[in-house]
This record gives sequence, structure tokens and C-alpha cells, in this order.
Amino acid sequence: MALIARCYTSGVNLRPNANFCSACGHGVTRRVPPGDSRLRDCCESCGAIHYVNPRPVVGTIPVWGEQVLLCRRAIEPCYGAWTLPAGFMEVGETTAEGACRETAEEALARVELGPLFTLIDVPGVEQVHLFYRARLLDQDFGPGEESLEVKLFAENEIPWEEIGFRTVSTTLRLFFEDRARGSFGTHTRALQPRTPG
Amino acid sequence: MALIARCYTSGVNLRPNANFCSACGHGVTRRVPPGDSRLRDCCESCGAIHYVNPRPVVGTIPVWGEQVLLCRRAIEPCYGAWTLPAGFMEVGETTAEGACRETAEEALARVELGPLFTLIDVPGVEQVHLFYRARLLDQDFGPGEESLEVKLFAENEIPWEEIGFRTVSTTLRLFFEDRARGSFGTHTRALQPRTPG
Repeated sequence: MALIARCYTSGVNLRPNANFCSACGHGVTRRVPPGDSRLRDCCESCGAIHYVNPRPVVGTIPVWGEQVLLCRRAIEPCYGAWTLPAGFMEVGETTAEGACRETAEEALARVELGPLFTLIDVPGVEQVHLFYRARLLDQDFGPGEESLEVKLFAENEIPWEEIGFRTVSTTLRLFFEDRARGSFGTHTRALQPRTPG
Repeated sequence: MALIARCYTSGVNLRPNANFCSACGHGVTRRVPPGDSRLRDCCESCGAIHYVNPRPVVGTIPVWGEQVLLCRRAIEPCYGAWTLPAGFMEVGETTAEGACRETAEEALARVELGPLFTLIDVPGVEQVHLFYRARLLDQDFGPGEESLEVKLFAENEIPWEEIGFRTVSTTLRLFFEDRARGSFGTHTRALQPRTPG
């Protein structure tokens, strides 16, 4: 349980406030710009306003027959925990392309992408997680650089206590519920920060 | 048509490359960090790596009976064009909260939020647009600071040639198609940059 508790620490992966303007190098002031209602990092020298927005995290639910592919993480946060292949979306790609790229990087797996399955807001860490259903094209997969091992699990084999992120356990539960019902939807959820302690 | 063409200019709203480290103020180098495969702005002084990720844009399709609420923009890009209420998601909020906030700010309107309707990737401007269906709670709406006017439109009154963003026209077309069919889904699309000229 220590493993799981660590993964959910609020503040992990939050970006630090800016001290300097990335455009001109001058110090920034944290204030509400005219016409705005929120604190922003403002450069009093060049006038740049440095907005910060939530980041999309994209991944897949790779399926082979009745089994789902999970990866055991070789990096923090959640080193050693199991997860679906997913990661931060990169500029220049679509959510679908990012989900496939993460699946290739973390599980060395090729998939045929299906529909969007979950959109899960995680406001406490300024992220939006998006998981697509996916069909593995073959069993030629394995651990990428960010994974310790990669393995297919039947529903009754899922290591629920060792799943590294609530967005992943939520997505897996919804997936097995929909599969049991014989009808898959697109689900939206919001995860609020856990109370400390 | 000049209006529309201007709105779709690729590069609008793209963030400039960083020249300085926002943490320590030292100059940054654009290089591929060890274990990575992409160019990042790296600080050689404090070691910070400044990742840039696509930004979520969130909005609603506010409906009153058979009519849809549109806003005419009072700001660039697309000054003077019609749009659904939408804008950049802020940190600390969920996609649903952001969609409601934008609807309140741009159209001074209160809505009951429905399901996610479209997820539209716009890789050319590093954005992911998310629109929720919504029901106006009353007719007490009007132009917020970023709108020139706000108005209800029946389907045959939609000013298609003056819609300011392809994500909005795509969302509206899908909305009317689903409504005609009597069944609403969640749709994912990707818009590629238009070829110049």
C-alpha cells in the first residue's frame, strides 16, 4: 500500500512557478493582467504573459482476446506499479497518435486504435487523461525503456492493489463493466485530490 | 471569406520558443535530453527541461429548444466571426468546469452540462478542442467582454460562412446530424492544417 500511496501524492508532476521570462530573461511578476481574472507570470520588461494550462495525458487499453496489456513502471512517479501505456501528449501529434506512440514506447506494441473510451479530469495535478480502446496486432511486445515488464492479464488477474494511477484503475473498471454488458461507451469522470494522511 | 481565411492561419496562437530558463534565468539550449527523442529547451545551468505540451480548449453547445447559442467574437483571432463559447482550459478546473466558465464569461449564460460531444485534435496549433452538450437554464444571456453579440440560431439560420473556427463548424454539423437522427454520440476528429494559398 505504501507504493500506491506514494503515487497519489498531490503536487507530483506540478510545474514550478516561473521566476524569469522565458522570452527575454527579465524577472516576472505574478499578477492579474488587465482584462483577466487570474494570476499570471507577467514580464514587466517585454510584456509577455506566460499562461499555464492543464496537460493532456494519452494512452490505450491494448486488448488481446480476453486479456489486457499492462506495463510495470521503471520510472517515477509510481516506480514498480502497473499501468496502462500512457504519457504526456507531445506537440504536433493528435491524441490518437500520442496514444499509439506511448503504447509503442512503453510496451513496444503495435495496436489498431478503437474509439475514445475515457476522459478523466485530474485537476489536482493539472492533467486530463484520455484512453482509447485498442486491439493488439500481434503478441510481439515487451518492456520499453520506461517499463520493467509488460504482461497480458485476464480480468481476474488484474493486480488492482498495484495499479499506479487512479485514472488507470478507473478506466480498467469501466472497461470490464462495459465488456460484461456487451456495449462500450465513452465515459467522462473527474478525480478530486485525496485528502492527505 | 477574408474573415474566415484569416482565422485559419496556421501558426496563430503558437507559443514562441524559449530563450531563457524560467526557473533560473540562464539561457536555454534546444537539444534532445538523454533518454528522450525530442528537442526540448534545456537549461545548462540548473538542469531544468522545459516541456511544451498541447493545450485543451473547452466549450459548450448551449441549446434552448431547437436553437443554439452562438457568440460573435470581440477579440482576435477571428474578430467578428461567430463561434460557440469556448476557450483555453485553466489549471485547477475540470474540462466540464472550464466549459461552463467559458460559457458564463463569453455569453453570460448559465447552462446544465450534458455529455461530452466532440474531441477534435488540431495538431497544427497544438490544441485539443472539447465541446460538451449543454442546456440553457434561461434566456438571460448577453455578450461578455470577449463577445460583440450573443444570439440564438435555428439550424437554418446558422451563419456557416462566418463561423470562426473549423472545430466549431465541425461540432455544429455533427450536432445537427445527430439531432436529425435522434441519437447523440461522442465524436472524435482530427483537423489537419490547411495548405497555404
